[in-house]
Order: sequence, then C-alpha cells, then structure tokens
Amino acid sequence: MEPFEYVSQALGPLEVSVDISSCGICYSDVAMLDNEWGMSRYPLVPGHEVVGQISEIGDQVDKLAVGDQVGVGWYASSCGSCGYCAQKEQHLCASTKPTIAGRHGGFAEKISCHQDWAIKIPKKLNLDKAGPLFCGGITVFYPILACGVKAGDHVGVVGMGGLGHLAVKFLSKWGCEVTVFTTSESKTKDAKKFGAKTIVSTHEVSQLRALNRSLDFLLVTSYADLNWPLYLNMLSPKGRLHIVGAVPKPIPVPAFALIGGQRSISGSALGSPDAVSQMLDFCLEHKITANTESFPMSEVNKAIAHLRAGKARYRIVLNNDF
Amino acid sequence: MEPFEYVSQALGPLEVSVDISSCGICYSDVAMLDNEWGMSRYPLVPGHEVVGQISEIGDQVDKLAVGDQVGVGWYASSCGSCGYCAQKEQHLCASTKPTIAGRHGGFAEKISCHQDWAIKIPKKLNLDKAGPLFCGGITVFYPILACGVKAGDHVGVVGMGGLGHLAVKFLSKWGCEVTVFTTSESKTKDAKKFGAKTIVSTHEVSQLRALNRSLDFLLVTSYADLNWPLYLNMLSPKGRLHIVGAVPKPIPVPAFALIGGQRSISGSALGSPDAVSQMLDFCLEHKITANTESFPMSEVNKAIAHLRAGKARYRIVLNNDF
Repeated sequence: MEPFEYVSQALGPLEVSVDISSCGICYSDVAMLDNEWGMSRYPLVPGHEVVGQISEIGDQVDKLAVGDQVGVGWYASSCGSCGYCAQKEQHLCASTKPTIAGRHGGFAEKISCHQDWAIKIPKKLNLDKAGPLFCGGITVFYPILACGVKAGDHVGVVGMGGLGHLAVKFLSKWGCEVTVFTTSESKTKDAKKFGAKTIVSTHEVSQLRALNRSLDFLLVTSYADLNWPLYLNMLSPKGRLHIVGAVPKPIPVPAFALIGGQRSISGSALGSPDAVSQMLDFCLEHKITANTESFPMSEVNKAIAHLRAGKARYRIVLNNDF
Repeated sequence: MEPFEYVSQALGPLEVSVDISSCGICYSDVAMLDNEWGMSRYPLVPGHEVVGQISEIGDQVDKLAVGDQVGVGWYASSCGSCGYCAQKEQHLCASTKPTIAGRHGGFAEKISCHQDWAIKIPKKLNLDKAGPLFCGGITVFYPILACGVKAGDHVGVVGMGGLGHLAVKFLSKWGCEVTVFTTSESKTKDAKKFGAKTIVSTHEVSQLRALNRSLDFLLVTSYADLNWPLYLNMLSPKGRLHIVGAVPKPIPVPAFALIGGQRSISGSALGSPDAVSQMLDFCLEHKITANTESFPMSEVNKAIAHLRAGKARYRIVLNNDF
C-alpha cells in the first residue's frame, strides 16, 4: 500500500461523514487487497473497523449529530425500504454496500456512510480497542443472538484468532461453559484467561471423540478444513454447528448426522445495527475488549505483514497519524 | 416373509398391549428386512405404523385404558427420566427403543409398547388411513413445528412419495405457499390436488435457478442425491433446508451458501408423542388423510413387492386378516 489522495463524494441526505481516529485490520482487508473474492477494484482503500467522530451530517439525518463517537463496520449502506430493512435486519438486505468495495474504506482520514451503519459508541467504552468489534466482534456476537444461545449452554469455539478470542469472551460472559478447539498450544493460557473452561487440541482425535453428543452450540471461526463428521457428532440433540469462517472447500455433511440428533449447521455474516449496539452495551457491562496491538496508520504495511505472518495477538488497530 | 408364531413378553408395569387392526408399510420396514442399516436381527417382524385397540394395560399405566384406539410408530419406549423425556421430547432420549429392532413389530396380531408411545387417536379420525401418520406423517409434520414454519411462508417439498404427499397436505393447510420438486410428471395433478401451488421438475435446472432466494423452508423427503448448491441457493435469507430423507452420500455444503444468507441445513427423525397428538388434531380439523392402498396382512409379500416397484400411491396399509 502507498499513500493515495482522493476527493470524497458529496454527502447524501442520509449519510454522515466520520473523522477517523483508528481502524482495525480484518483478514477480509487482506483478502480484498489480494482480490481473493474477485470483487476488488484498484486503487483500493481497505479498512472496515472504523472508529471516529461525526464531522458532518446529511440534510435528512435524524439519528446522529456532529460530534458523536461512532463505529463503522463491513457495511456502509442498505436500501432502507425492503422487508429486511423494515424489520431492522439491514444486514440481510439484498442491496447492502460493503464499505471497501465500490467505495474507499477506513485506512484513511475520513469516511462516509448511511446513518444506519454509523453506530453510536457508549461514552465509557475504550475507543482505542473498539474498532475490531465492528466486524470481528459482531461476526461472533450476532450468532449468539440469532441462534438463541442460552446461559448454561455447553458451547465450543473452533479457532482462537481475532474472531475466536472475542467469541470466547462473549460466550463465557453470556453464562456458557466454553470449550476451545485450537491447533496452537501457545494460546491455551490465553483461552483460560478469556473465560474458556476446557481447551482441546484439534489434533487429539480421541479427545474430540470423547466430546460426542456434548455441545449445544459449536461456533467455527477458523477457515481450516476440519474432520467435519467428528465435530457434528459432538453436538447434543438439537445442537447447532454455526460457521462464520470462510471455509474454502464444501463441507461434507452426512444426512444421518443431522437427522439422528435433530441437529443443524448454519452460517452468518456480520449482524444488524441493533445487534451491534447490543454488543457494545454488553461489552461495557462485562468489561470486554478485544486484545489488540497498535500500529500507526502510516505503518500499515508493517502491520499487515505482522497479520499475514499469523503473529497478531489478537487483533491489530491502526491509529490515524495522518 | 412367512407366518411366524411367538409368545409376547410379559407386560411391563408401564406398558400397554394393543390388538392390531391395521399397520402401514414404511420404506424403513424394507430397509430392516434387507438389513440395510446393519441392525436387523432375524426372525424379524416389521411394521411400525400400527393402529389398534388397547386390550391390556400394565399395573402403573395411568394415561390409557382398555378399549382406547391408539397408534404406535417407530418408537416403542424411551427412558422416562432423562432431560429430554422430562421436557416431553422423548424422541430425543438416548435410550429410545425402536418398535422393530430388538422386538417384534406390527405386521402381527398384537404389539406392546410403553404408554408414552401408544398415542390416542381422536374418535372421528378415519382409522383405516391413520397408520401412515405414525411414522411417515410425524416425520414431515414435526419439522413444521420444530423449524417454526409460519403461515404465509414460501416452502418447498422435494420428493412426493409417502412422506412428501403428506408434507404437501400439511404445509398447504398450515397456510404456506407450497412448491413441489418431483422427477415424476405423472404426480403433477396429484400435487395440485394436495394443495401445491407450483410444481417444478427436478430436471429443469433453469427453473430451479429461477427460484434463487425465494424459499423460507425446503423439506427434503427424497433420498436422492440432489444438486445441493442449487437447492441451497433457493433459500431466502434465514431460510432453512431440512432433511428427513435418508440421503446416502454426504451432502457437500459450501460454507458461503450458509454464511451469505444466514441460512441453515438441518435434519430430524420422527417427533415427540405430543407432536403426534397435535398432528392428529390438525388432520381432523383440516380433513387430512394419507392417500392409501390396502392389502390384507396375509398378502404382505405382494404389498411389499408393490412398494419396492415404486408403485405405491402413496402409502400402503395392511389390514389384519389373521
């Protein structure tokens, strides 16, 4: 990446402009830089875990004011009129616009978005660590709501990276008994600190087998190819395996693994603006923050190399030094 | 099959004995005859869609009386004390005992089972056609409850055999708009009669593609290998594909097909006794019966040959003539 100057489009009537103070780095930024999903257009400005202050509002903005602290995540707009938007599930709208595709993102001084997608940050929340909540955080918080996870449930989290470490924090404070599945022995201590009760190495097939029929909910945050039948068999009757990681190869699902225990397998991306607000309140109440490492935004290339090397513990935030 | 005489075990304190008037034939009976699932023990007496009258009750039976008309399905007992049994989801109990594995089934004069699994039949229900409801019927009715299908939902039914034809009747009377997917052109007329609004040939890929993002719920009652990604893509956001057919090969599920639209894929077998009662009431209220063909029980071999030949329209009932 190199410095790039551009003039922002005029602000739409329902849009707000945000002066960026910091922006998290998500693996999706790297995927977009590399055009992994075939939808990148260059010059490309990544960044979709924005934290900043509103500097200007469009004529018809009625939910936000200049000076508000807000966060902006993967989506910058939705249609506002379809059934999903009307039911406040704007992330399911067929016309959502991603923050970094077709527009320039948050590794920048300013960004604009629809008022629905600039989400007010509670006053007492630690702004320096808030960025990663707006993509990584909501990706793992939303399934807790959407899948009806309850306090007391036995849950598993596969993978403990940027997404997984937040999932462990959320689920343990939600009142669940959390088992973490990881390939990395070095993360065992952290997992306990984040609230996990049990840590299982994904290489230990006998330990995996011993968990047969024991989990109500299993959240897959990694994009590794797992021994899927083994993980499905860990689900209790009515249990659900939920995927948020971009697993590349089709997952082979034996019909009997679902039929036998009335199990399900599902997936989701991001979440609604209301769910983001609920997550921010939950973080404040339970003193949850992402574990972050900071880089000045001018050193973005160094930060991305750190992420690519798999060294991030657990999420990187760029502080705007332009 | 040939006539076989045996002495029933003494009745347990919570068991009832049923004088059988008729018994449906389910494809699972054929699978058990052929030991397809590796759990058959011979001599084997199939039959798990029993209709009959209680002739004797155990000491502690408190829910049923001699003379009651009841039906018995795939399960003959459950433990009665686990969490699932306590919550009246006895079909999820780890200790359920199938009616035709480890005990003799309903192609017989008498059968016994735990009182929880002999389900009272409403007085006005057509007894001659009731048998198939206790396995085929509940297999497709239970998902409507468990998956939260609502009136007004757009639903699909894949396969219109013994299970599928009942699914179409249930779902249309539930208030859903039903699309049937079938390989058999000859069934088109019947599908309309049963309440389907649209019939699509599973061979017409362009028609299948046109249904992209349109179905809230898709019930797979066939055991054919489908073009799964195509069917997953028919699901609207939050849509669910639910499998009750014994699809033999693992289903390849692309993670993105789930993540993108917050979709799920699930399965179930049978249903709880309470759900069976609810189904029977629903059938009475909406005048729903299975479409059946009758054979005398003494001609069971002829009946099974008819089923194996794929000629059943749509479910076979054996009337006890012993």
